[in-house]
Amino acid sequence: MDTVYVIKIGGNIIDDEQKLAAFLNEFARVKAKKILVHGGGKLATRLAEQMNIPQQLVEGRRITDAETLKVVTMVYAGFINKSIVARLQAAGTNAMGLSGADGNAVLAHKRVHPTIDFGFAGDIDSVNASLLTALLEQDITLVMAPITHDQKGQLLNTNADTIAQELAKALSVHYKVHLIYSFEKSGVLRHAEDETSLIPQINAASYKQLKEDGAVFAGMIPKLDNAFAALNSGVERVIIGKAENLHALIDGTTGTTIVNE
Amino acid sequence: MDTVYVIKIGGNIIDDEQKLAAFLNEFARVKAKKILVHGGGKLATRLAEQMNIPQQLVEGRRITDAETLKVVTMVYAGFINKSIVARLQAAGTNAMGLSGADGNAVLAHKRVHPTIDFGFAGDIDSVNASLLTALLEQDITLVMAPITHDQKGQLLNTNADTIAQELAKALSVHYKVHLIYSFEKSGVLRHAEDETSLIPQINAASYKQLKEDGAVFAGMIPKLDNAFAALNSGVERVIIGKAENLHALIDGTTGTTIVNE
Repeated sequence: MDTVYVIKIGGNIIDDEQKLAAFLNEFARVKAKKILVHGGGKLATRLAEQMNIPQQLVEGRRITDAETLKVVTMVYAGFINKSIVARLQAAGTNAMGLSGADGNAVLAHKRVHPTIDFGFAGDIDSVNASLLTALLEQDITLVMAPITHDQKGQLLNTNADTIAQELAKALSVHYKVHLIYSFEKSGVLRHAEDETSLIPQINAASYKQLKEDGAVFAGMIPKLDNAFAALNSGVERVIIGKAENLHALIDGTTGTTIVNE
Repeated sequence: MDTVYVIKIGGNIIDDEQKLAAFLNEFARVKAKKILVHGGGKLATRLAEQMNIPQQLVEGRRITDAETLKVVTMVYAGFINKSIVARLQAAGTNAMGLSGADGNAVLAHKRVHPTIDFGFAGDIDSVNASLLTALLEQDITLVMAPITHDQKGQLLNTNADTIAQELAKALSVHYKVHLIYSFEKSGVLRHAEDETSLIPQINAASYKQLKEDGAVFAGMIPKLDNAFAALNSGVERVIIGKAENLHALIDGTTGTTIVNE
């Protein structure tokens, strides 16, 4: 089985021109089949402000109304996705940008919630693994924007972490999949602001303990839950760490590695 | 040789919600390999206004400065491209959206002009026919946004008519290519405002005569020049006509057919 790296980059990297350039050069040097899943960063929020589209927050979560969907589709699937693809082409990587609608890559439905209407937020139903496999086998590097669709004509704003996880799971039938969440921190930290408190490895038992101790901070819990779900569905390895250290993350010499046992 | 339809839709169709929906339903029903090339319409101009990006015109032509490039990339490769792809998926057509950067589909260079700096406007160098052929052979319908790149990391704003022509020419090595320019008029008209003055067929000799008579209006001349260039490079047939009549255009029962002889 070939190896595939599914690598998610966080919004803070996308917002930082220099960090993004450095990351993409590192990413281009990864000598294996690979998929980059990107979030959106602050660009969409800024554009919504410029367009006078009020951003609604309900219980701290953003609502994707029709105008906001237009903004995120423009920014994520348009500007960010194509800028990354063009840079990777310049770095010698034959990249192709996709949204979930393209080739029916990621099918989703509008989120159903008992009390909150999240608007055009998508929860994933399925991944078109045969399309992705066919493209990867043509040595195409995929760059995935966090926009999916419902196959009834509706585009949907979808969490990039979840897309990375679902792609990794779907591809693990055909490949040894390494799922890497790269962001601005060194990995999972015992103390949120202390980069020296990196936890190099977490398994199911130690995760339970960390949660009981309150040692994993709130934003990290969905990431770790996703990591364990991915491992339980056949993904080889999940790594969380700093985008600048991509090759060290792949080598396992830095970051937090999540394992089942 | 299989047949491929390369179909360009003009901005006026994209700006009209109902016409676009009707066109996409017609397009989805075309039972052959096909590529849709879309322009941008007024959306990009409106967004630039909202973002307070002044639009520079030199000798009546728009200059693509860095901020305008961002706008057209967002609107063309993001919102319009993905909206069309999602609608085609809903209509049962497995569509995939591409810019020229994706898979290195269309390579271009920044326009060189002795007196005018057009900014990030791209003139096409080459088309990646083997990528397009591989995708078409997987029964994927391609939806092409008018954004290309220079393989050095720079995205470029590129004329959609020219992209359609270059795709048609490049694919004519492998397929019988029919190139259709669909827009708001019935075809090439002898009198610009009189839809009954449709010229059903133009060949090289009659084109020369029409130009001498001043019977083809200014905006049509580049389209016709492109049409003859395409025919001279192996394209089977070029048709210009109304987007609403797509199937009649394909059947040759309406519109203007351009032939060499």
